[in-house]
Amino acid sequence: MGQSIRIAIAGYGNLGRGVEAAIAKNPDMQLTGIYTRRPPSQLQPRLEATSVYSMEALSGHAGKIDVLILCGGSKEDLPQQGPELAALFNTVDSFDTHARIPEYFASVNGPALANRKTALISAGWDPGMFSINRVYGEALLPDGATYTFWGKGLSQGHSDAIRRIPGVAGGVQYTVPVQDALEEVRQGSRPTLTTRQKHTRDCFVVLEPGADPEAVKNAIVTMPHYFDEYDTTVSFITEEALRREHNAMPHGGLVIRTGNTTEENTQVVEYSLKLGSNPEFTSSILVAYARAVHRMHQAGQYGAKTVFDVAPGLLSAKSPEQLRAEDL
Amino acid sequence: MGQSIRIAIAGYGNLGRGVEAAIAKNPDMQLTGIYTRRPPSQLQPRLEATSVYSMEALSGHAGKIDVLILCGGSKEDLPQQGPELAALFNTVDSFDTHARIPEYFASVNGPALANRKTALISAGWDPGMFSINRVYGEALLPDGATYTFWGKGLSQGHSDAIRRIPGVAGGVQYTVPVQDALEEVRQGSRPTLTTRQKHTRDCFVVLEPGADPEAVKNAIVTMPHYFDEYDTTVSFITEEALRREHNAMPHGGLVIRTGNTTEENTQVVEYSLKLGSNPEFTSSILVAYARAVHRMHQAGQYGAKTVFDVAPGLLSAKSPEQLRAEDL
Ligand SMILES: NC(=O)c1ccc[n+]([C@@H]2O[C@H](COP(=O)([O-])OP(=O)(O)OC[C@H]3O[C@@H](n4cnc5c(N)ncnc54)[C@H](OP(=O)(O)O)[C@@H]3O)[C@@H](O)[C@H]2O)c1
Ligand SMILES: NC(=O)c1ccc[n+]([C@@H]2O[C@H](COP(=O)([O-])OP(=O)(O)OC[C@H]3O[C@@H](n4cnc5c(N)ncnc54)[C@H](OP(=O)(O)O)[C@@H]3O)[C@@H](O)[C@H]2O)c1
Repeated sequence: MGQSIRIAIAGYGNLGRGVEAAIAKNPDMQLTGIYTRRPPSQLQPRLEATSVYSMEALSGHAGKIDVLILCGGSKEDLPQQGPELAALFNTVDSFDTHARIPEYFASVNGPALANRKTALISAGWDPGMFSINRVYGEALLPDGATYTFWGKGLSQGHSDAIRRIPGVAGGVQYTVPVQDALEEVRQGSRPTLTTRQKHTRDCFVVLEPGADPEAVKNAIVTMPHYFDEYDTTVSFITEEALRREHNAMPHGGLVIRTGNTTEENTQVVEYSLKLGSNPEFTSSILVAYARAVHRMHQAGQYGAKTVFDVAPGLLSAKSPEQLRAEDL
Repeated sequence: MGQSIRIAIAGYGNLGRGVEAAIAKNPDMQLTGIYTRRPPSQLQPRLEATSVYSMEALSGHAGKIDVLILCGGSKEDLPQQGPELAALFNTVDSFDTHARIPEYFASVNGPALANRKTALISAGWDPGMFSINRVYGEALLPDGATYTFWGKGLSQGHSDAIRRIPGVAGGVQYTVPVQDALEEVRQGSRPTLTTRQKHTRDCFVVLEPGADPEAVKNAIVTMPHYFDEYDTTVSFITEEALRREHNAMPHGGLVIRTGNTTEENTQVVEYSLKLGSNPEFTSSILVAYARAVHRMHQAGQYGAKTVFDVAPGLLSAKSPEQLRAEDL
């Protein structure tokens, strides 16, 4: 197995915690430390042995880190941290603002290339494993259609949007695929489905004292971009129920490709995830891609990369010989 | 898109016919011809425009073919054709004798490397897409277990085995996953399942006149390697029913990885196929990998390769920019 791969974590939120847990499950890796913008003493790492440093210490530790996993948020943190840190480290991140990926790719590619670093962007499950399955599906069945369904799962962005509404003390939102649409897709008939036909949105809301439930409900279901194009249900619950029943972060979904190889024959490919914890699964993916990034860097493959550029075997701790003998 | 990729087919059975159909669905490719060991005039290609040549003509056409797709059988044809043709062409094949893959890999790697050719072995769905999902599953959830189920589908090898029994005029065998086992796996409990607990085998047999049904049935269900470790059902049908109801080649199956990212959180990844035609889907995969092989050869990546060595993006007709913008 050779020397173990030295991984560091930049940013300690849900993903950061997940990466810490995932490294412990991969014997060919070691965690060299967590780097945070907050005072290091404020952080409570999952494991006692984990060192916490200030983000400013990062550049001085460059020689001790093989791959830095960026666990910052896609909205505010990565657009700044990604390009900056790709100049100093091999990096992996989970940038998930789909519309801005080309722009983000370019912003990371420049500094990475200039400094002979490898920077894998937008790993995770979507973008990530779902994207891979969209590409495989299209390539294997060019005469076909692809459908992505999300859920049942907690949507962080939509939960945040609910919590910003006046009168709301707390709340969560679950995205749920419409079963009839799912079944229709699986039959291979390639239906055209509107946004409303694919998913429903279920909200669980805690009201502030004196807030008007009808006004809150109306503010939610008519919210542009977030809810107005969906059938949305709103249930009011107590603070205690929110804490007790809605504190996990389950998620999942499906990518389905249906197509015809000839007029007579329909083929259906389905990739599905049922995740007990969205951030922990995402983190586990980031860690596997850190292994690949380390190998690609050793092979002289510099610049920004995506999951589309990474051969499956590079993710595995097994040797190519072992993979051919055991997994093929 | 540039110049179209010139593909040729070696061997015209089920896969050969499927490859011919698949190329017609990929506008960046053209079929230069079919090569057969039989007299070319005996073959009836699917499309009128398709040229058929004798296998002996192949070596003279080397300059006109970018990738040769080997559609011979894994048992008798590929062990000989694979190494021979990898010395002259970039090749893709679907070698599926799992236990002999390392040996076959070595036999193809030597001549391919010596002649600066790229030879992708064992593409298809199993080996192939299922193998990829086994590797992804292990890498993303190292603390977990992998399960492969096949079916419901027609097994060529088991159908052949039935037909070799004295007294049998014809017959087919379907492999069927045991639903209870499947559900148990999906719960994430990582059960240990015996061969018998995972699949049943359903046989439909046409007897020769005067044959003893009990003797035939007994010969089937006790057949070592093929049936003795399974719960097998045998139904006797007429020649006409065999032709009418069992002439398609459906198949499919599932690869499931379940694992824990922490003690509290279980994650389930499932990849499943429902194939109207096993050979046509396999062929469609071979054609997508021919695109990848062409690109890898142009990039100077010579020798034997497997699906583990091929980055997903290489299979797509889209450019990397387009993939990042549309599929990530
Ligand atoms: N591709 C995918 O499939 C996928 C899946 C899930 C998530 N994601 C992406 O991953 C990103 C990160 O997700 P996340 O759930 O880890 O976000 P998060 O918990 O909000 O953490 C983001 C950053 O906020 C800071 N932070 C965390 N907890 C804090 C606290 N209590 N007080 C102050 N600052 C705190 C941390 O940086 P410091 O330690 O430096 O303060 C951390 O790096 C998301 O934006 C999303 O885009 C992608
Ligand atoms: N990896 C996977 O997922 C996967 C899936 C399915 C199959 N496979 C593999 O693919 C291999 C080929 O499958 P297949 O269904 O295409 O086999 P097949 O129909 O038996 O064809 C195999 C070869 O036999 C010859 N042939 C075909 N029809 C013939 C006929 N009527 N008379 C005499 N010869 C004939 C052809 O060579 P000539 O034209 O040179 O005579 C052809 O290349 C299988 O052995 C299996 O191992 C792999």
